[in-house]
Amino acid sequence: MNSPDWQALYEQVCNHARQTAVLASIEALLGWDERTMMPPQGAQYRAEQIRLLAGLLHSRRTDPQWGEQLARLAESPLMADPLSDQAVTIRRLKRQYDKDVRLPQRLVEELAQTASLAQHVWQQARRNNDFKAFLPWLEKTFQLKREQAEAVGYPECRYDALLDDFEPETRTSQVAQVLIELRDRLVPLIGRILGSRRKPDSSLLRRYYPRQAQEAFGRQVAETIGFDFTAGRLDVTVHPFCSSIGPRDCRITTRYNEHRFQDAFFGILHEAGHGLYDQGLREDQYGLPLGEAVSLGIHESQSRLWENVVGRSLAFWRYFFPKAQEFFPQALGDVSLEAFYFAINEVRPSLIRVEADEATYNLHILIRFELEQALLEGDLRAADAPGAWNEKYRQYLGITPPDDTQGVLQDIHWSAGLVGYFPTYALGNLYATQLFQQAQAELGDLSEAFERGEFRPLLDWLRTKIHQQGQRYLAPELIQQVTGRPLSSQPLLEHLEAKFLPLYES
Amino acid sequence: MNSPDWQALYEQVCNHARQTAVLASIEALLGWDERTMMPPQGAQYRAEQIRLLAGLLHSRRTDPQWGEQLARLAESPLMADPLSDQAVTIRRLKRQYDKDVRLPQRLVEELAQTASLAQHVWQQARRNNDFKAFLPWLEKTFQLKREQAEAVGYPECRYDALLDDFEPETRTSQVAQVLIELRDRLVPLIGRILGSRRKPDSSLLRRYYPRQAQEAFGRQVAETIGFDFTAGRLDVTVHPFCSSIGPRDCRITTRYNEHRFQDAFFGILHEAGHGLYDQGLREDQYGLPLGEAVSLGIHESQSRLWENVVGRSLAFWRYFFPKAQEFFPQALGDVSLEAFYFAINEVRPSLIRVEADEATYNLHILIRFELEQALLEGDLRAADAPGAWNEKYRQYLGITPPDDTQGVLQDIHWSAGLVGYFPTYALGNLYATQLFQQAQAELGDLSEAFERGEFRPLLDWLRTKIHQQGQRYLAPELIQQVTGRPLSSQPLLEHLEAKFLPLYES
Repeated sequence: MNSPDWQALYEQVCNHARQTAVLASIEALLGWDERTMMPPQGAQYRAEQIRLLAGLLHSRRTDPQWGEQLARLAESPLMADPLSDQAVTIRRLKRQYDKDVRLPQRLVEELAQTASLAQHVWQQARRNNDFKAFLPWLEKTFQLKREQAEAVGYPECRYDALLDDFEPETRTSQVAQVLIELRDRLVPLIGRILGSRRKPDSSLLRRYYPRQAQEAFGRQVAETIGFDFTAGRLDVTVHPFCSSIGPRDCRITTRYNEHRFQDAFFGILHEAGHGLYDQGLREDQYGLPLGEAVSLGIHESQSRLWENVVGRSLAFWRYFFPKAQEFFPQALGDVSLEAFYFAINEVRPSLIRVEADEATYNLHILIRFELEQALLEGDLRAADAPGAWNEKYRQYLGITPPDDTQGVLQDIHWSAGLVGYFPTYALGNLYATQLFQQAQAELGDLSEAFERGEFRPLLDWLRTKIHQQGQRYLAPELIQQVTGRPLSSQPLLEHLEAKFLPLYES
Repeated sequence: MNSPDWQALYEQVCNHARQTAVLASIEALLGWDERTMMPPQGAQYRAEQIRLLAGLLHSRRTDPQWGEQLARLAESPLMADPLSDQAVTIRRLKRQYDKDVRLPQRLVEELAQTASLAQHVWQQARRNNDFKAFLPWLEKTFQLKREQAEAVGYPECRYDALLDDFEPETRTSQVAQVLIELRDRLVPLIGRILGSRRKPDSSLLRRYYPRQAQEAFGRQVAETIGFDFTAGRLDVTVHPFCSSIGPRDCRITTRYNEHRFQDAFFGILHEAGHGLYDQGLREDQYGLPLGEAVSLGIHESQSRLWENVVGRSLAFWRYFFPKAQEFFPQALGDVSLEAFYFAINEVRPSLIRVEADEATYNLHILIRFELEQALLEGDLRAADAPGAWNEKYRQYLGITPPDDTQGVLQDIHWSAGLVGYFPTYALGNLYATQLFQQAQAELGDLSEAFERGEFRPLLDWLRTKIHQQGQRYLAPELIQQVTGRPLSSQPLLEHLEAKFLPLYES
């Protein structure tokens, strides 16, 4: 037998992955449409459409013939240079395949079905402040996640297996270390801020901001930082998100509250940040690892960077505030830049994660991260989750939820089977500041550019260093590679101190 | 061997068809989204998505095992009563299967991808009056349609094979006969009308009709005639259409011109008429022949019936005109019902099919029907289509398009690969009046109900006689069954004479 044509086999394997990505992009459209456009009565049939596609996708992703081809390539001469495009592609595809096939079909189906049913129960339970109604589903979800972790395997603890779905090769112990480090310095910092007599007048954000003007302003800002609307859209949903339907079709959503300026505006910036990552991925590698995002944490770093590090900076608003005044003459005509800047940077411990400020946000994550580990390991019974939740809020944030709707029932994640997802939000914040520090180290202080409305230098840097890399490196390697050091809590703490102490203590 | 369990086999065959319908409904969403929501740069990848789905659909529809099961059922005891639900289902599925297997996979995918790409070229070409840009795509489309006709086979001429996709078991020669009969009596009728000294003041339709009010009024009317917006949507597209994404998700579109009242309004009525058919199909048979429309001609009969026979009647406007005056006080405040009614029923030869009046409309169809036969047979070169188009407009309607945008480039159909589709519009007009005549013969004069805003009796009659029948009968059988006689040009001619002669010659 002749030596195999490795190049042809490689192309074949890539084509399979590309076709799988086409199917996955169709599933993304079904999801986007369901949340933005679908008439209410369409829900039942939509579930059938999604189920059919999910089945097709799973069988493509676990196709044994494809798996065998991948295994052969993994031992082939194409792996000679481990950092070549081909070697990276094979390694990543094989890693994912090996993970996918370890999940029994029965468990995949039960997880999907439970997630679908539990979300409906959760919605009701949250509305009625009825944790008991949700309890059996919470128990079942964590039971199934335990089975999933056991089926997939893990290096140190069960949670590793789940975290790996969102943040490949990142260990629970690493996340714990950095989050606890962060907590130990955040809690006193927040104490100092709260002890200050200076307070922003945040009521100015609750004036009347007409919806149409919010949308027009949000679009203009998204466009200015680089979001391409000829390859994207902005729509309205209850829960904002960013979803890509293909390499040049990235759709973001937001929600408008005419008496809360910050909701839609920072929502748009956040989702546009995700969108800039998607729009910056290598189109020629779409559907292959080199054209895909590294991890949810890195994805979140892009959204947090634009939302917070850039979008809540004084330099940013030096450029945009006069424009905002034109869009909202009634609400902002008599407001100074400084008062506005202080208002959008108010620090105040609050019950709801998605409304939290930059400083307290990560404590919300730490609470969830600790609780879900305990639930997964069986150290905490699901029935005791509300009490444990409230206790941690008292301990870390000094406030106690008056009910479970504003407590343990607030997030959709557990009902949707997303356990191990929360830490990626905090990782996103950490990566965002570490990357921004490095960008400024290389490009110089970016404030002046921002003041002139120039965001291209920063975007170009992110494109080169992050977006165009795809999954060449996993998240910890990428951070090391780009910033020259491993993940650290230092840049975020420095950023928060540099921003909030002058505001509150000047 | 025991005698086979026919019932179980039947269920199996139906489940296959239902799953195929789920995939087809996903394809419908891709198409709807492409035309209403997709950002411009999404086009290229959308073509890949559609091609993949078209391929999956074709392989399901031509699955040999399924074909064999169908063949066995077709010889089974389930066929004993040829009009039983089961027998009809098997017969229709088998007819379609036998047709589908004749198309090679390669051709199916090429047709789908070409249609997706050609539509974007056509849009540009129409905008820029640039027929040359579209020419290669027109040539390619007709080349592929020729291949399709040859692959499928036909009784008399190639066009039969394409017509059959839209109007099963109807032959080109039959359509030609009834259209020529119609033409021979229409041309003198139009001559009489144009010779009259009475003319409507149609300038009142070109006053200012604000877009928002047009949409609100159109929605209200669509809802009043029975369109269910909890199971449907109304959006904006260049070329209006109706598409169902599932049994309870029917989406219609229109376009607004603030100085042409009739465009959006009758567009909405027309598409809502299609929508009422889709919303009236048997949900328990969704994806099976008894839950599907008979043919495009019958589908069009429903839209034409609501748009023209009902929506341009005096009784309809006796109810809606006072409401229209409320929506458009500036434009209609000083207008009488009679003047408005005459204006929306102006007969005037025009260049654009979708804007044509009830009397001249069918001549637009005859022109396209003749041209596409010639293009398909190779009697006319694609490059010569603009000249041939203009010549026929001169001959049948006495006017000549000043450019291709208002001539050969006006319709989306050829760019979308829809050859053989146009005649179904004329069939729709013929069926609509024949059905309405029958409805009035059974229900009595409906004018009084319309004047009171009651459209339910007519809708219920259509639901029973047409919608709920699904494909129990093919179009010619259905018309015979419901009206007691075969398709005839007589009812349409009687309708046109009864409406227009009093208007123009009184």
